Amino acid sequence: MDWNKLLAGRTSLMRRSAVRELLRLVNRPGMISFAGGLPAPELFPVDEIRAAADQLLEKHGPVVLQYGETEGVAELRDWVARSLSRPGLALGRDHVLITTGSQQGLDLIGRVLIDPDDKVAVENPTYLAALSAWRPWQPHLLPLACDDDGLTPEAVASLPSLRPKFLYTIPNFQNPTGVTLSLERRRKMITALAGSGTLIVEDDPYGELRYRGEALPGLLELAGGPEPQMLRLGSFSKVLAPGLRVGFVVGPAVLIEKLALAKQALDLHTATFNQWLVLELLRNGVVDRNLPKLRAAYGERCSAMLDALDKNLAGAATWTKPEGGMFVFARLGRGVSATDLLAKAVERGVAFVPGAEFHVDGTGEETLRLNFSHASPAKIREGIERIADAAGRST
Amino acid sequence: MDWNKLLAGRTSLMRRSAVRELLRLVNRPGMISFAGGLPAPELFPVDEIRAAADQLLEKHGPVVLQYGETEGVAELRDWVARSLSRPGLALGRDHVLITTGSQQGLDLIGRVLIDPDDKVAVENPTYLAALSAWRPWQPHLLPLACDDDGLTPEAVASLPSLRPKFLYTIPNFQNPTGVTLSLERRRKMITALAGSGTLIVEDDPYGELRYRGEALPGLLELAGGPEPQMLRLGSFSKVLAPGLRVGFVVGPAVLIEKLALAKQALDLHTATFNQWLVLELLRNGVVDRNLPKLRAAYGERCSAMLDALDKNLAGAATWTKPEGGMFVFARLGRGVSATDLLAKAVERGVAFVPGAEFHVDGTGEETLRLNFSHASPAKIREGIERIADAAGRST
Repeated sequence: MDWNKLLAGRTSLMRRSAVRELLRLVNRPGMISFAGGLPAPELFPVDEIRAAADQLLEKHGPVVLQYGETEGVAELRDWVARSLSRPGLALGRDHVLITTGSQQGLDLIGRVLIDPDDKVAVENPTYLAALSAWRPWQPHLLPLACDDDGLTPEAVASLPSLRPKFLYTIPNFQNPTGVTLSLERRRKMITALAGSGTLIVEDDPYGELRYRGEALPGLLELAGGPEPQMLRLGSFSKVLAPGLRVGFVVGPAVLIEKLALAKQALDLHTATFNQWLVLELLRNGVVDRNLPKLRAAYGERCSAMLDALDKNLAGAATWTKPEGGMFVFARLGRGVSATDLLAKAVERGVAFVPGAEFHVDGTGEETLRLNFSHASPAKIREGIERIADAAGRST
Repeated sequence: MDWNKLLAGRTSLMRRSAVRELLRLVNRPGMISFAGGLPAPELFPVDEIRAAADQLLEKHGPVVLQYGETEGVAELRDWVARSLSRPGLALGRDHVLITTGSQQGLDLIGRVLIDPDDKVAVENPTYLAALSAWRPWQPHLLPLACDDDGLTPEAVASLPSLRPKFLYTIPNFQNPTGVTLSLERRRKMITALAGSGTLIVEDDPYGELRYRGEALPGLLELAGGPEPQMLRLGSFSKVLAPGLRVGFVVGPAVLIEKLALAKQALDLHTATFNQWLVLELLRNGVVDRNLPKLRAAYGERCSAMLDALDKNLAGAATWTKPEGGMFVFARLGRGVSATDLLAKAVERGVAFVPGAEFHVDGTGEETLRLNFSHASPAKIREGIERIADAAGRST
């Protein structure tokens, strides 16, 4: 069989993600990984999840193990709707689709919204797996400039004339940069795009993970209602556990219906048991009670990384100062390749993700993404020292 | 916002599945449902699943709740490979991709193999959700004739000249017909397609659910190796529990790699916890020990339905005599509409799926699919009586 002949033309558009590939390195003995975006597994509320799973199976086994509706478990949809409702934004069940992780939400958006050559505006750099999900649909990606306050107002102001189908943004502790869109810019963005025909797609997996500064209202909340006029992606992967693969999309009922129709052909529905488990852990307060622990631990790790960078790489690199999330983004000196540095770093037992592949305009060769949520503060210090050593800095 | 303008052109190719819609009817009080393809929830091994979940979370909580590799949990891939290996067919981990239910396998096949206007040969009628998964990729579907022994040899013999990219077949207890492809025809199919450039895609969700007659080797086993030259889809939904959403694709490593690359963008990976749970239940024999119970109960239900049809609808319809699986397929008199009958049946508290939408050539208006795995024998008798009443047959 000629396998290459058999493949669809578009498989040439699929790129293997270096982030995923690097996950394989995480388990190598002695390796300190700043790659991937893994939560700290020692912070999963395992005992509470165990108790909830046990209760659910004891009381409702036949229901939670059976097929379910494509849109998701009704009570979980209600919970999400209630938790995001505000005065002036009255969300209901029909505004919520439960997805198999928020990655599936991204895939569904590509499937339902992107025709070949449609313009899609993205932060540059942006979340790699969103690009992977959309490339098979052949969009024309518009890279938008960002600085330490997120997407620049100039970049956003250029959109109404370019008329992209949607703007994809991660306003809180962005992946890969860790940067947060300022409140003023959020307001300006909503004003600039109102009535422009460009849909806002707000991805917010990290919003609850803020370690300093004041929480900002999301674009969904700022834009208001009564019916939402944009899409919001959310996930329980970062605030609970990614191995359950439960996320959601919130938006106008007419779009949610189309996304559900597309999801039907993808996997029928998200695992019933996992949805009920998440709902149970929301209802009995486990998610809320675990958040302060996550914030305390990740905040400490974030500080450890920023301090270690100060101590070991001042002058050789600059980096962002995240107020939350999971990532610091660093920039090496002009002309210094982060991919070359990675090869040397891996020899010394530390991994990160070169920033070039998060960029959609071929730039970023001198940038790298450093995850701080997975390793302990001691490992973080050790890992940054190893990177400094790889970069030829003696400490 | 003009939502219709925003939608991708291909969303017009997505059809809402009546099967999924009808799932909503199942919970209406007093409704007897022969629609859907639901396993009997009272036969789920709930206590064993509960014990396995408890053990897993106690011993390996941080691992089973964390992100995992896109291809799936290595030990589960090994298990699937071992269980399908035969003398002359040596399957390994690289031949297996774990999927989020076998529905995701169908979606991935469309994504990786179908370019617009590619020919795809299917049994007529065939599994509806396979068609839903593939239609957005705009294949040219070739309907193939089937009789009580499955795909006819004449239909298969026509394929090498038509050169479809792949042939999709459900050889055991087909959905929707319940018919099984005979051993002789299986052998002929493999011979006819060898070297033809047409890939065989064998979907086998029901193979373990045989109630009478002798088990037949699958196409994968008959075609042999050493490396598989076709794709096999499998699922734990019917032999364990569908609410876990765990299935698999087996095939040549070069194709599995492409499917995994596509899956990465779909949902990163199938829920880690669910994969470990299935593996645990395979390892400790729960799946094997539960199968005889399923076969006994479903076999009784199948007989109850066939007997009730004999008693109530002889002369007004003909139907298949499945040796396993979950479905009987009936044909009303010429010119009698199953869709019209459904409306009357629902008034009388019984539901089924009209067969027309399983057909790809616009025929089948007088056919209907009857599921026998979900209702008790008493309910099955009552339900068939109600259908006979709806059809104007007094009993």
